[in-house]
Amino acid sequence: MEISADEVERLLDTWPVARLATVASDGRPRQVPVVFARSGGALWSPVDGKPKSGRELARVADVRRDPRVGLLLDHYDDDWQRLWWLRVDGDARVVAPAEGPDVDAAVAALRAKYPPYGTTPVLRAPPTILRILPTRSRSWAASRDAVSSSLA
Amino acid sequence: MEISADEVERLLDTWPVARLATVASDGRPRQVPVVFARSGGALWSPVDGKPKSGRELARVADVRRDPRVGLLLDHYDDDWQRLWWLRVDGDARVVAPAEGPDVDAAVAALRAKYPPYGTTPVLRAPPTILRILPTRSRSWAASRDAVSSSLA
Repeated sequence: MEISADEVERLLDTWPVARLATVASDGRPRQVPVVFARSGGALWSPVDGKPKSGRELARVADVRRDPRVGLLLDHYDDDWQRLWWLRVDGDARVVAPAEGPDVDAAVAALRAKYPPYGTTPVLRAPPTILRILPTRSRSWAASRDAVSSSLA
Repeated sequence: MEISADEVERLLDTWPVARLATVASDGRPRQVPVVFARSGGALWSPVDGKPKSGRELARVADVRRDPRVGLLLDHYDDDWQRLWWLRVDGDARVVAPAEGPDVDAAVAALRAKYPPYGTTPVLRAPPTILRILPTRSRSWAASRDAVSSSLA
Protein backbone atom coordinates (compact mmCIF):
# COMPACT_ATOMS: atom_id res chain seq x y z
CA MET A 1 0.00 0.00 0.00
CA GLU A 2 1.02 3.63 -0.31
CA ILE A 3 2.13 5.74 2.64
CA SER A 4 -0.50 8.26 3.75
CA ALA A 5 0.01 11.92 2.85
CA ASP A 6 0.31 12.79 6.56
CA GLU A 7 3.04 10.24 7.10
CA VAL A 8 4.90 11.37 3.98
CA GLU A 9 5.00 14.87 5.47
CA ARG A 10 6.28 13.57 8.79
CA LEU A 11 8.95 11.47 7.12
CA LEU A 12 10.20 14.39 5.03
CA ASP A 13 10.37 16.53 8.16
CA THR A 14 11.95 14.06 10.56
CA TRP A 15 13.60 11.05 8.88
CA PRO A 16 17.34 11.54 9.35
CA VAL A 17 18.84 9.97 6.24
CA ALA A 18 18.13 9.64 2.54
CA ARG A 19 20.02 8.10 -0.32
CA LEU A 20 20.67 10.61 -3.05
CA ALA A 21 20.93 9.22 -6.57
CA THR A 22 22.47 11.31 -9.31
CA VAL A 23 23.34 10.60 -12.94
CA ALA A 24 27.09 10.14 -13.43
CA SER A 25 28.80 11.43 -16.58
CA ASP A 26 28.59 8.01 -18.22
CA GLY A 27 24.88 7.71 -17.43
CA ARG A 28 25.33 5.29 -14.54
CA PRO A 29 23.35 5.95 -11.39
CA ARG A 30 25.44 7.11 -8.44
CA GLN A 31 24.09 6.80 -4.88
CA VAL A 32 25.31 8.25 -1.63
CA PRO A 33 23.64 8.62 1.78
CA VAL A 34 22.90 12.22 2.72
CA VAL A 35 21.41 14.28 5.48
CA PHE A 36 18.70 16.70 4.46
CA ALA A 37 16.07 19.07 5.78
CA ARG A 38 12.88 20.45 4.35
CA SER A 39 12.45 24.18 4.12
CA GLY A 40 10.31 26.41 1.91
CA GLY A 41 8.94 23.57 -0.17
CA ALA A 42 12.35 22.22 -1.10
CA LEU A 43 14.68 19.59 0.32
CA TRP A 44 18.17 20.80 1.14
CA SER A 45 21.29 18.73 1.52
CA PRO A 46 24.61 20.29 2.52
CA VAL A 47 27.74 19.15 0.73
CA ASP A 48 30.78 18.74 2.92
CA GLY A 49 33.58 21.05 1.86
CA LYS A 50 37.19 20.11 1.22
CA PRO A 51 36.97 16.92 -0.83
CA LYS A 52 40.28 15.08 -0.46
CA SER A 53 41.20 15.22 -4.11
CA GLY A 54 40.76 18.97 -4.42
CA ARG A 55 38.15 18.31 -7.10
CA GLU A 56 34.47 18.94 -6.68
CA LEU A 57 32.49 16.14 -5.04
CA ALA A 58 31.07 13.73 -7.60
CA ARG A 59 27.46 14.41 -6.65
CA VAL A 60 27.95 18.14 -7.19
CA ALA A 61 29.53 17.65 -10.60
CA ASP A 62 26.68 15.28 -11.49
CA VAL A 63 24.01 17.79 -10.56
CA ARG A 64 25.69 20.59 -12.52
CA ARG A 65 25.59 18.36 -15.58
CA ASP A 66 22.15 16.80 -15.04
CA PRO A 67 19.78 18.16 -12.37
CA ARG A 68 17.65 15.01 -12.21
CA VAL A 69 18.04 13.31 -8.83
CA GLY A 70 16.21 10.87 -6.63
CA LEU A 71 15.96 10.72 -2.85
CA LEU A 72 15.06 7.45 -1.18
CA LEU A 73 13.92 7.20 2.42
CA ASP A 74 13.33 3.72 3.74
CA HIS A 75 13.28 1.51 6.78
CA TYR A 76 14.57 -2.03 7.03
CA ASP A 77 13.34 -4.31 9.77
CA ASP A 78 13.70 -8.03 10.42
CA ASP A 79 9.92 -7.97 10.66
CA TRP A 80 8.99 -7.52 7.02
CA GLN A 81 5.54 -6.20 7.94
CA ARG A 82 7.37 -3.03 9.00
CA LEU A 83 9.11 -2.30 5.72
CA TRP A 84 8.40 0.91 3.87
CA TRP A 85 10.05 3.24 1.37
CA LEU A 86 9.43 6.71 0.03
CA ARG A 87 11.05 7.89 -3.18
CA VAL A 88 11.11 11.53 -4.20
CA ASP A 89 12.23 12.48 -7.68
CA GLY A 90 13.33 16.03 -8.12
CA ASP A 91 15.48 18.57 -9.83
CA ALA A 92 18.55 19.66 -7.94
CA ARG A 93 20.57 22.82 -8.10
CA VAL A 94 23.89 23.67 -6.53
CA VAL A 95 23.31 26.76 -4.44
CA ALA A 96 25.82 29.13 -2.91
CA PRO A 97 24.86 30.35 0.57
CA ALA A 98 25.20 33.97 -0.45
CA GLU A 99 22.06 33.51 -2.54
CA GLY A 100 19.88 34.73 0.27
CA PRO A 101 17.31 34.11 2.98
CA ASP A 102 16.08 30.80 1.51
CA VAL A 103 19.46 29.31 2.23
CA ASP A 104 19.61 30.84 5.69
CA ALA A 105 16.27 29.20 6.48
CA ALA A 106 17.51 25.87 5.13
CA VAL A 107 20.66 26.02 7.25
CA ALA A 108 18.55 26.80 10.30
CA ALA A 109 16.33 23.79 9.50
CA LEU A 110 19.40 21.54 9.23
CA ARG A 111 20.73 22.82 12.56
CA ALA A 112 17.39 22.21 14.24
CA LYS A 113 17.10 18.68 12.82
CA TYR A 114 20.63 17.38 13.50
CA PRO A 115 22.19 17.70 16.97
CA PRO A 116 25.75 17.21 15.60
CA TYR A 117 25.40 20.57 13.84
CA GLY A 118 25.54 22.08 17.30
CA THR A 119 29.30 21.56 17.20
CA THR A 120 29.96 21.15 13.45
CA PRO A 121 29.36 23.89 10.89
CA VAL A 122 26.60 23.05 8.41
CA LEU A 123 28.54 24.62 5.57
CA ARG A 124 32.29 24.46 5.15
CA ALA A 125 34.49 26.02 2.49
CA PRO A 126 33.59 25.99 -0.28
CA PRO A 127 30.08 26.42 1.17
CA THR A 128 27.75 24.38 -1.01
CA ILE A 129 24.24 23.08 -0.58
CA LEU A 130 21.96 21.17 -2.91
CA ARG A 131 18.41 22.42 -3.27
CA ILE A 132 16.08 19.72 -4.51
CA LEU A 133 12.66 20.66 -5.83
CA PRO A 134 10.43 17.57 -5.67
CA THR A 135 8.64 16.76 -8.90
CA ARG A 136 7.11 13.37 -8.10
CA SER A 137 6.98 10.86 -5.31
CA ARG A 138 6.11 7.22 -4.88
CA SER A 139 5.83 5.14 -1.76
CA TRP A 140 5.19 1.67 -0.49
CA ALA A 141 4.49 0.22 2.93
CA ALA A 142 4.09 -3.44 3.84
CA SER A 143 1.34 -2.70 6.35
CA ARG A 144 -0.81 0.10 7.69
CA ASP A 145 1.35 0.72 10.76
CA ALA A 146 4.77 0.20 9.15
CA VAL A 147 5.65 3.90 9.09
CA SER A 148 4.12 4.84 12.44
CA SER A 149 6.04 2.07 14.20
CA SER A 150 9.36 3.32 12.88
CA LEU A 151 8.51 6.96 13.59
CA ALA A 152 7.62 6.15 17.19
CA MET B 1 38.80 6.62 5.18
CA GLU B 2 37.96 3.52 3.16
CA ILE B 3 36.43 0.39 4.66
CA SER B 4 38.92 -2.46 5.00
CA ALA B 5 38.72 -5.35 2.53
CA ASP B 6 37.80 -7.74 5.37
CA GLU B 7 34.92 -5.55 6.47
CA VAL B 8 33.69 -5.13 2.90
CA GLU B 9 33.46 -8.92 2.68
CA ARG B 10 31.58 -9.13 5.96
CA LEU B 11 29.15 -6.41 4.91
CA LEU B 12 28.41 -8.09 1.58
CA ASP B 13 27.77 -11.37 3.39
CA THR B 14 25.70 -10.11 6.30
CA TRP B 15 24.25 -6.60 5.82
CA PRO B 16 20.51 -7.09 5.36
CA VAL B 17 19.53 -4.28 3.03
CA ALA B 18 20.86 -2.41 0.03
CA ARG B 19 19.46 0.31 -2.18
CA LEU B 20 19.39 -0.74 -5.80
CA ALA B 21 19.71 2.04 -8.36
CA THR B 22 18.78 1.39 -11.95
CA VAL B 23 18.55 3.64 -15.00
CA ALA B 24 14.92 4.43 -15.91
CA SER B 25 13.86 4.69 -19.55
CA ASP B 26 14.21 8.47 -19.50
CA GLY B 27 17.72 8.25 -17.99
CA ARG B 28 16.64 9.19 -14.49
CA PRO B 29 18.04 7.15 -11.61
CA ARG B 30 15.50 4.89 -9.91
CA GLN B 31 16.15 3.61 -6.37
CA VAL B 32 14.47 0.93 -4.33
CA PRO B 33 15.53 -0.94 -1.19
CA VAL B 34 16.24 -4.61 -1.79
CA VAL B 35 17.32 -7.72 0.04
CA PHE B 36 20.25 -9.57 -1.44
CA ALA B 37 22.70 -12.40 -0.83
CA ARG B 38 26.16 -13.13 -2.12
CA SER B 39 26.77 -16.42 -3.87
CA GLY B 40 29.35 -17.55 -6.39
CA GLY B 41 30.97 -14.14 -6.77
CA ALA B 42 27.70 -12.38 -7.62
CA LEU B 43 25.06 -10.53 -5.63
CA TRP B 44 21.52 -11.85 -6.06
CA SER B 45 18.30 -10.01 -5.39
CA PRO B 46 14.94 -11.71 -5.75
CA VAL B 47 12.12 -9.81 -7.38
CA ASP B 48 8.74 -10.25 -5.81
CA GLY B 49 6.25 -11.75 -8.21
CA LYS B 50 2.77 -10.47 -8.98
CA PRO B 51 3.23 -6.72 -9.46
CA LYS B 52 -0.15 -5.09 -8.92
CA SER B 53 -0.41 -3.61 -12.38
CA GLY B 54 0.27 -6.88 -14.17
CA ARG B 55 3.26 -5.24 -15.80
CA GLU B 56 6.83 -6.13 -15.05
CA LEU B 57 8.36 -4.40 -12.05
CA ALA B 58 10.12 -1.18 -13.02
CA ARG B 59 13.52 -2.34 -11.83
CA VAL B 60 13.28 -5.47 -14.00
CA ALA B 61 12.33 -3.48 -17.09
CA ASP B 62 15.18 -1.06 -16.36
CA VAL B 63 17.76 -3.84 -16.14
CA ARG B 64 16.57 -5.46 -19.36
CA ARG B 65 17.11 -2.11 -21.09
CA ASP B 66 20.34 -1.09 -19.35
CA PRO B 67 22.25 -3.55 -17.15
CA ARG B 68 24.17 -0.89 -15.25
CA VAL B 69 23.13 -0.80 -11.61
CA GLY B 70 24.44 0.39 -8.28
CA LEU B 71 24.00 -1.12 -4.82
CA LEU B 72 24.45 1.06 -1.77
CA LEU B 73 24.92 -0.33 1.73
CA ASP B 74 25.14 2.21 4.50
CA HIS B 75 24.56 2.88 8.15
CA TYR B 76 23.09 6.01 9.69
CA ASP B 77 23.73 6.83 13.32
CA ASP B 78 23.13 9.90 15.44
CA ASP B 79 26.81 9.59 16.30
CA TRP B 80 28.38 10.73 13.04
CA GLN B 81 31.67 8.99 13.89
CA ARG B 82 29.80 5.76 13.14
CA LEU B 83 28.70 6.60 9.61
CA TRP B 84 29.87 4.47 6.71
CA TRP B 85 28.78 3.53 3.20
CA LEU B 86 29.75 0.96 0.62
CA ARG B 87 28.78 1.37 -3.02
CA VAL B 88 29.05 -1.48 -5.50
CA ASP B 89 28.60 -0.79 -9.19
CA GLY B 90 27.74 -3.74 -11.32
CA ASP B 91 26.04 -5.22 -14.31
CA ALA B 92 22.72 -6.88 -13.66
CA ARG B 93 20.90 -9.57 -15.53
CA VAL B 94 17.38 -10.88 -15.10
CA VAL B 95 17.71 -14.60 -14.45
CA ALA B 96 15.06 -17.30 -14.60
CA PRO B 97 15.43 -19.91 -11.84
CA ALA B 98 15.43 -22.74 -14.37
CA GLU B 99 18.86 -21.55 -15.46
CA GLY B 100 20.56 -23.95 -13.12
CA PRO B 101 22.59 -24.66 -10.01
CA ASP B 102 23.94 -21.11 -9.67
CA VAL B 103 20.42 -19.93 -9.01
CA ASP B 104 19.72 -22.80 -6.62
CA ALA B 105 22.80 -21.79 -4.61
CA ALA B 106 21.68 -18.15 -4.60
CA VAL B 107 18.21 -19.09 -3.36
CA ALA B 108 19.79 -21.20 -0.61
CA ALA B 109 21.99 -18.22 0.37
CA LEU B 110 18.93 -15.96 0.56
CA ARG B 111 17.08 -18.51 2.72
CA ALA B 112 20.06 -18.81 5.05
CA LYS B 113 20.43 -15.03 5.37
CA TYR B 114 16.79 -14.02 5.91
CA PRO B 115 14.66 -15.73 8.58
CA PRO B 116 11.38 -14.56 6.94
CA TYR B 117 12.17 -16.84 4.00
CA GLY B 118 11.50 -19.70 6.39
CA THR B 119 7.79 -19.01 5.86
CA THR B 120 7.78 -17.01 2.61
CA PRO B 121 8.92 -18.39 -0.73
CA VAL B 122 12.05 -16.67 -2.08
CA LEU B 123 10.69 -16.78 -5.60
CA ARG B 124 7.08 -16.28 -6.57
CA ALA B 125 5.43 -16.45 -9.95
CA PRO B 126 6.82 -15.27 -12.24
CA PRO B 127 10.04 -16.43 -10.54
CA THR B 128 12.64 -13.77 -11.21
CA ILE B 129 15.95 -12.92 -9.64
CA LEU B 130 18.54 -10.27 -10.47
CA ARG B 131 22.14 -11.39 -10.69
CA ILE B 132 24.56 -8.51 -10.23
CA LEU B 133 28.19 -8.93 -11.18
CA PRO B 134 30.22 -6.32 -9.30
CA THR B 135 32.52 -4.27 -11.48
CA ARG B 136 33.74 -1.62 -9.06
CA SER B 137 33.28 -0.58 -5.46
CA ARG B 138 33.91 2.48 -3.36
CA SER B 139 33.55 2.98 0.35
CA TRP B 140 33.83 5.55 3.09
CA ALA B 141 33.85 5.34 6.87
CA ALA B 142 33.92 8.23 9.32
CA SER B 143 36.22 6.37 11.72
CA ARG B 144 38.21 3.18 12.06
CA ASP B 145 35.57 1.37 14.12
CA ALA B 146 32.46 2.68 12.33
CA VAL B 147 31.75 -0.59 10.52
CA SER B 148 32.71 -2.95 13.35
CA SER B 149 30.41 -1.13 15.76
CA SER B 150 27.39 -1.55 13.47
CA LEU B 151 28.26 -5.18 12.67
CA ALA B 152 28.52 -6.05 16.38
